[in-house]
Amino acid sequence: MCRTCGCDDHQFEPVATQIKLDDKLLAKNDRLAEVLRARLARDHIAACNVIGSPGAGKTTLLEHTIRALRDVSISVIEGDQATDHDARRIAATGARVMQVNTDAGCHLDAAMIERGLTELAPAPRSLVVIENVGNLVCPALFDLGEQAKVVVVSLTEGEDKPLKYPHVFRAARAMVLTKFDLAPHLDVDPVRYIEHARRINPAIEVFPVAAKHGHGMAEWCGWLRRQIGAVA
Amino acid sequence: MCRTCGCDDHQFEPVATQIKLDDKLLAKNDRLAEVLRARLARDHIAACNVIGSPGAGKTTLLEHTIRALRDVSISVIEGDQATDHDARRIAATGARVMQVNTDAGCHLDAAMIERGLTELAPAPRSLVVIENVGNLVCPALFDLGEQAKVVVVSLTEGEDKPLKYPHVFRAARAMVLTKFDLAPHLDVDPVRYIEHARRINPAIEVFPVAAKHGHGMAEWCGWLRRQIGAVA
Repeated sequence: MCRTCGCDDHQFEPVATQIKLDDKLLAKNDRLAEVLRARLARDHIAACNVIGSPGAGKTTLLEHTIRALRDVSISVIEGDQATDHDARRIAATGARVMQVNTDAGCHLDAAMIERGLTELAPAPRSLVVIENVGNLVCPALFDLGEQAKVVVVSLTEGEDKPLKYPHVFRAARAMVLTKFDLAPHLDVDPVRYIEHARRINPAIEVFPVAAKHGHGMAEWCGWLRRQIGAVA
Repeated sequence: MCRTCGCDDHQFEPVATQIKLDDKLLAKNDRLAEVLRARLARDHIAACNVIGSPGAGKTTLLEHTIRALRDVSISVIEGDQATDHDARRIAATGARVMQVNTDAGCHLDAAMIERGLTELAPAPRSLVVIENVGNLVCPALFDLGEQAKVVVVSLTEGEDKPLKYPHVFRAARAMVLTKFDLAPHLDVDPVRYIEHARRINPAIEVFPVAAKHGHGMAEWCGWLRRQIGAVA
């Protein structure tokens, strides 16, 4: 069986390629991430790094999450190539927020989070949510000092995504499967979607949601509360 | 007015960051891309580089495109982090196909295309379609020697995507807006979606499609035929 995707055979013998990552850059990032992790732990702050493609529903999930967790102090670092649209949407919920624009950049790095934490100054025993740049690929490789990575994918993206983009599913502690209300209109099998995620990462926690309609939000918010509890 | 997104103001004064790209790596890629472009022109081969997020509907679009262009010889280079699922789907249409797996890599580069062209040996006056790794961000920066980049985004991703991820919309000659059949079930304004794309790139050609139902496919396939005609 294929080690990566679980296929029984590779009809096409895919050409495997290696793009050399800049090891020095990654090592520098990871050292700073460890400093941030220690700082967050000292202040009993839970931090989640939310990763998903553009349009997966990360900001909508976050808006509804913040409104559901009224009793929790939440700070948000918003990553996008351009615009402050998402920061405005988050600000409208009452949460503290900072927008980071990466221009051509494809991910947030630990230095950006350090600036964000300095500017937002989250309270002890609060929650920091990092909404990474919309990209299912690169952000998986960068440690931001977070307590947990959360992968957000929409049902519309199709059930094969965990197999085709395994790195982020392997790195994530939880997966939120959004836009579940569209299920009747799609040729997508939610059961196989979740099964594929668990094939890549047997320990991953899965939360199917339709954030706009409230479905699944109690379970997802319960998990977030447990992350806060774990560092309190 | 904001230069990037066209907003009238930036409520949040986004933190602009710069991730230094490896200029030498890009220059090396671009030199090889020019060699490939000359080779494709010499053989009167049209090449399109299809870019979009995971689950935007690139492979489904391609399956239906190949079936609609029965009289055209089409070769496909399929990029994914893992699996040969997409190559199998394309092979089932009868097109020639090669799968490239990038593992942690976030884009295809010119060297991969060179290997693909050598393996597939596309006929003179044929069409080569490169389906890039699912990622709306990084592939925009890499010249593959193609005649045109095509950005594929689904209606479900939301109308703000061209403003938030402008690089790929600026680089693309055409945009295919997929999953149009889901419009009645979404809070997404297709007119604004297209308007946003044109704000970033006034010359971009736009093709709304529902590939599974055939809607919009004639216009999109007509544009592809014109690309083939332009190099014949």
